[in-house]
Order: sequence, then structure tokens, then C-alpha cells
Amino acid sequence: MKYESLFAFTHTVFIKIGCSEKDAYTATKVLLSADLRGIDSHGVARLSGYIRLWRKNRINATPSIRIVHETPSTATIDADSALGLVAAPFAMQIAIEKARIAGTGWVAVKGSNHFGIAGEHAMMALPENMIGIAMTNASPLVAPTWSTDRLLGTNPIAFAIPAKNEPAFVADFATTTAANGKLEILQRTGNDAPLGWIQNKDGSPTMDPFALSSGGALLPLGSDREHGSHKGYCLGSIVDILSAVLSGANYGPWVPPFVAFLNPPDNPVGEGIGHFFGAMRIDAFRPADDFLNHMDNWIQTFRNAKPIEGRERILIPGDPERETAKIRMIEGIPLNDQVVDDLKELAVSFGIEFRDI
Amino acid sequence: MKYESLFAFTHTVFIKIGCSEKDAYTATKVLLSADLRGIDSHGVARLSGYIRLWRKNRINATPSIRIVHETPSTATIDADSALGLVAAPFAMQIAIEKARIAGTGWVAVKGSNHFGIAGEHAMMALPENMIGIAMTNASPLVAPTWSTDRLLGTNPIAFAIPAKNEPAFVADFATTTAANGKLEILQRTGNDAPLGWIQNKDGSPTMDPFALSSGGALLPLGSDREHGSHKGYCLGSIVDILSAVLSGANYGPWVPPFVAFLNPPDNPVGEGIGHFFGAMRIDAFRPADDFLNHMDNWIQTFRNAKPIEGRERILIPGDPERETAKIRMIEGIPLNDQVVDDLKELAVSFGIEFRDI
Repeated sequence: MKYESLFAFTHTVFIKIGCSEKDAYTATKVLLSADLRGIDSHGVARLSGYIRLWRKNRINATPSIRIVHETPSTATIDADSALGLVAAPFAMQIAIEKARIAGTGWVAVKGSNHFGIAGEHAMMALPENMIGIAMTNASPLVAPTWSTDRLLGTNPIAFAIPAKNEPAFVADFATTTAANGKLEILQRTGNDAPLGWIQNKDGSPTMDPFALSSGGALLPLGSDREHGSHKGYCLGSIVDILSAVLSGANYGPWVPPFVAFLNPPDNPVGEGIGHFFGAMRIDAFRPADDFLNHMDNWIQTFRNAKPIEGRERILIPGDPERETAKIRMIEGIPLNDQVVDDLKELAVSFGIEFRDI
Repeated sequence: MKYESLFAFTHTVFIKIGCSEKDAYTATKVLLSADLRGIDSHGVARLSGYIRLWRKNRINATPSIRIVHETPSTATIDADSALGLVAAPFAMQIAIEKARIAGTGWVAVKGSNHFGIAGEHAMMALPENMIGIAMTNASPLVAPTWSTDRLLGTNPIAFAIPAKNEPAFVADFATTTAANGKLEILQRTGNDAPLGWIQNKDGSPTMDPFALSSGGALLPLGSDREHGSHKGYCLGSIVDILSAVLSGANYGPWVPPFVAFLNPPDNPVGEGIGHFFGAMRIDAFRPADDFLNHMDNWIQTFRNAKPIEGRERILIPGDPERETAKIRMIEGIPLNDQVVDDLKELAVSFGIEFRDI
């Protein structure tokens, strides 16, 4: 489907639930940035999920997002149950404005919802010659090393770092061995998961991609203790603490589930889900041009490293997503049948037109 | 050997090379914190290595460490070839002072040397009710995903997060599957390395713990692409860029080797090695007491998670090191024969006494 057609449709859906023109535009742009960049699990495939949460009054289409605490370089934001797609750019903008004056800006967000792809928010810093950072906690699907309990989300981290002539360095990754979206692909195609991605309800390695629905868990980056899963557990924990313990959102097992058919825990320890954002002005550390020239050199050095046999080149974080976006902006976004059916259903329920062109 | 005896000996060595009383004390305290916490590879075992670098004029015992650039929440520091053991606490102190006024403080350091364990620096923030962050780049031993070239160091990251009645959360880990120190143990004991820790010169998996000396490389956290090594490569890269491209230190393949018998590259792109520190005041985001209470709850929740069969308990980051420190402070620090020989040699060369008591 053409990016523009999908944009117009999604935008209309957000308007229909009561979003302002500005919020509908922002939410659509953030959501579809995932489809453009090839992170299909976080794009328009989630639109019907957002709408189900809105129908359950868990997403507020007309929130009053506000700063509840601040210092020269920090702010805490109450998102008032907004779409994370709207709350996150609001918070990142505050981080950027703080950084303009104080050198860096750091913003913790509570009372929010799923925010799309972390990388898109971090990238807001790039045109300002700042380093952008974004992270979020998420529903508990991940077991700490040596546990059978699911206490952490896939808790992604994104860093966007500007360069001069080279495209920016954009890292955006779940702190698990495999993101949940990859597991969903295996479930759809009926393939086994590689060992090291998931464990069963007893904490033993399994290749069954459906193990999560019978008490299993995703594994932290590193897969097992011998291969450093305690480090992935540390990373996921840091994201959880910065996003939620620092902001006043729910953390660990209290994070509300993304799916609307499961209710949030009835003893919340905070409000909604939490995010954490940062912006660091390059010239708060050294003249921006010096940094940008050295980043070009850094990127060229890594890009020109010798590949192992059978591989063409070394990737710089952000390369695959940028290349996919370039193609999809022209050729359109491939939607699987399930997603098309979901969108058609949304079209019917809101009395709008869906044409897959 | 008793902690106090080892402290006195190490302190005397630093005095002998010309360190001020204050710097010798700081360097000794930081260095031995590794031995206390059980990170033997980063403690007094490295003392003779530091002295060899000093003899080569690569470490300056009487540096003039100074701020070369700053904003309300940031500073860049030229360490003037100081011991990293001295430059790092200096920089972390600046970060803390910036955080007192601006909410957060972020300090990049160039012209430095190996700084001991990252966790010790991050922990300086704890008594201030701040979150502490420390990272450093290091000599290139790690290949990016799909490459045979060694372009990154083991580039560790540490986060220290205060709690109320529970001991602090202290994560401190190399961004590789296994730290170099673990490989050195296998080399000494003649054991194979688990698959996933290292690759040979062609980039193929190997169990040979000596593969690094024949053109092999350590692998980023995740081990291989299927298990997320591109995420470990991202993490190591972020540490390299924040520590060195931002500060003006050497990065990637230009980072000077720790061993004195190898000369630094003769076309440096910056000065010495680089570090990056952060301090975030808890009450820059929410009332400190609210945060500390919730951190206690976070820690208790994870500590009480159900263990898999055969494991007694779930560890909180920092637990093993804190427990080891408690024991070693009383029972002393175990030194292997090679380290004792090195220390005896230092004693002879400086005309001081070494008694292993």
C-alpha cells in the first residue's frame, strides 16, 4: 500500500477517536515510521490494538500532557493516558529544549502507552546537532536470568548520533535476544525458534515459538548465563527503572499489558507505562564540526572493515532501516492479510473508506 | 593478603612514581575496589602494567587535569595522561557537582588511561541520592558483527542506582559476551572457551582461548547475529562514541593498547583513551523518598522471583560483588602466584618491602 494512502487512512482513524488534528498527524507519522523502516511489528499492525485500548478507556485521545516536576536539565511528564505516539514526541521536544539551554535534557514520562519505535523519537535530536536517546518499558514477557517469572518487557533502547556527510548512527534494539515481533513471525509461519530466544515454563531452553502462551518467557540479550544473559537482564532492568521508577509509572510485573483483553494489574504501583528520553547537545562537549567530522571517520572505518567470508559488508546501526525506508517510500508498504483485514474492520466500524492502493 | 597490607603497599608504589598523597590514595582505593569486589582482572593484578606504562611516559603521575569545555550540565575534561584511576573520580565529582545545580551532570574525558572498574566510579553518586553512570573505551579486541577486524574494546557500562533499605542496584558489565579477564583465566588453566565467546582470524566460531593472539577477536554481547550480537555491537559502539568521539580521545582501532610493549598507533585521531560519566539527581525527577521506596519494592520483587530448578535465588545486579567485598574485607584478598611475583618485582625495583600477609 502506498505510504500516502496508509497515512491518510491512519490519520482519519485517529481523528475519528477524537484526536486533535496535530495529535493525529504526530501519531500517524510516528506509527508509520515503523512500517517505513521495516519494523512491521510496531507499525500500522498495532493500530487496531490501540483502538481496542481506546475503547476500554485505557487510551485518552484528548489528554492534557503536562510537566509535573523540573530542573534546568530534567523534567517529569504526566502523559494523562495519552497515546505514547503523542506523549513521546512531546517529551522528546522538552528534552531538546532543555538541552538548548543546559547542554543536556532528560525527561521521564509516566501515565503513557505504547510509543511505537524508540528510534523515531531519538532521531528528533539529529537536526538539532544533538545525540538523542529514547527508551520505554513494556508488558512483562522476559524472565531475569535463572528465574521462571516474567518480570521485564522487551524494554528497547535507542541512540541517534549525528554525523556530517555520512547518514546518522541510529541504534534501536530490544534488550532481549529476539524481539517479540520476530517470535510472532515464527508463530505465523509455523517455524521453530532458535535455541536461546525463549525458555519454557520450567526455565528450560525450548524451540517452541508458542512457549510464551504456556508460561514460558523471552530471554534477556545473551540467552543464558554463560553467554551473558545477566547483562541483558541488567540492561532491561535499567530501562525499567529509568522509565518507570524514576517517573512514577508502573514497573516490572505491574506494567499494563498491551492487549486490551487482559486487564492491568489491580494493585498498580504507578501510572500507565513509562518512558525515558535524553538529548545531548554536541557542542556542549566539543565544537560540533570536530565531532561530526570524527563521526564520519568512525562510520567510514567501521563500514570499511573486512567482512567475514560470505558477507558483503559491515553494517552501521541504522543502515538497514534507512535503506528499507527509501524503498518503501517509493514502492509502498507491504501489509500482510491479517493486517489488511484488521484495517478493513476499523474502516467499517468508523464508517470510513479503506482502499489498499 | 590483608586488604590493609595490600593497600599500604600499592599506595607506596604510587607515591614512588611521583603521585601526590591524594592521588596515590585515590588510585589505590579505586584499584583495590576491584580486588575487594572479586573483579580480580582489574585490580592489583594490573599494577605492574600501569608502572610499565609510566616507565614509557604514557602515564603522567603529576598531571594537570582540567575542564576544557562546559555548560550548566556538561563538561569535557583533558586528563593530561593521568592514571584513569585518578582522572575518573575527578570527572565523576564534576558530574555530581553539575547535577546538584542543573539536575544532571555529564562529563566526557580525553587523554586518559585505564580507569579500573567502572562500577566504583558510578557508585560515587549513591551517597548523594543520585544515579551514577560510568563507561570507558578500551584497546580494540572485539570484532563488529560479520567482520574479522578488531575495532572495539570490551567497553564496559556501569549504572549505580540507590535504594532505601535495600543495597543499591549496581550493574557493571563489558559489552562483550565474555570479558577479557575470563579468557585469561581459561588461558591460565588450559581450558576451552565456550562457543560464542570468541572467533578465529577468519571470523569462524572457536573454543581456543588463545585465538586472540593469532588474529581472532572477542565477540559482542549476543555472540552471533541470530542471538543478537548486532545489539552488543551497538552497545560497544555507543560507549566508544560517547567516551571518545564526544571527548576528543582515540576511538575504534586507534585506542592505545594497555600493554606497554605495544606502541599506540602513530596516526592518533585524539588523545589517550576516553571515558564518559553521568550523575542524575533523583529529586530532579520525583521526591527522592518516593523513588527510594519504589526501588526497594523493585529489588524485593526481583529478588523474590521464582528460581529455576537447581538455582537458589535471583540475583540483583551488584549482589555478588557486594557479598565478595564483605568477605574479602575480613578474610583478605586471594592473589595468584603470578601477581605475587609481579608485586615482589615492583618492590625490588622501588626498594620497598612486600610482605604477603
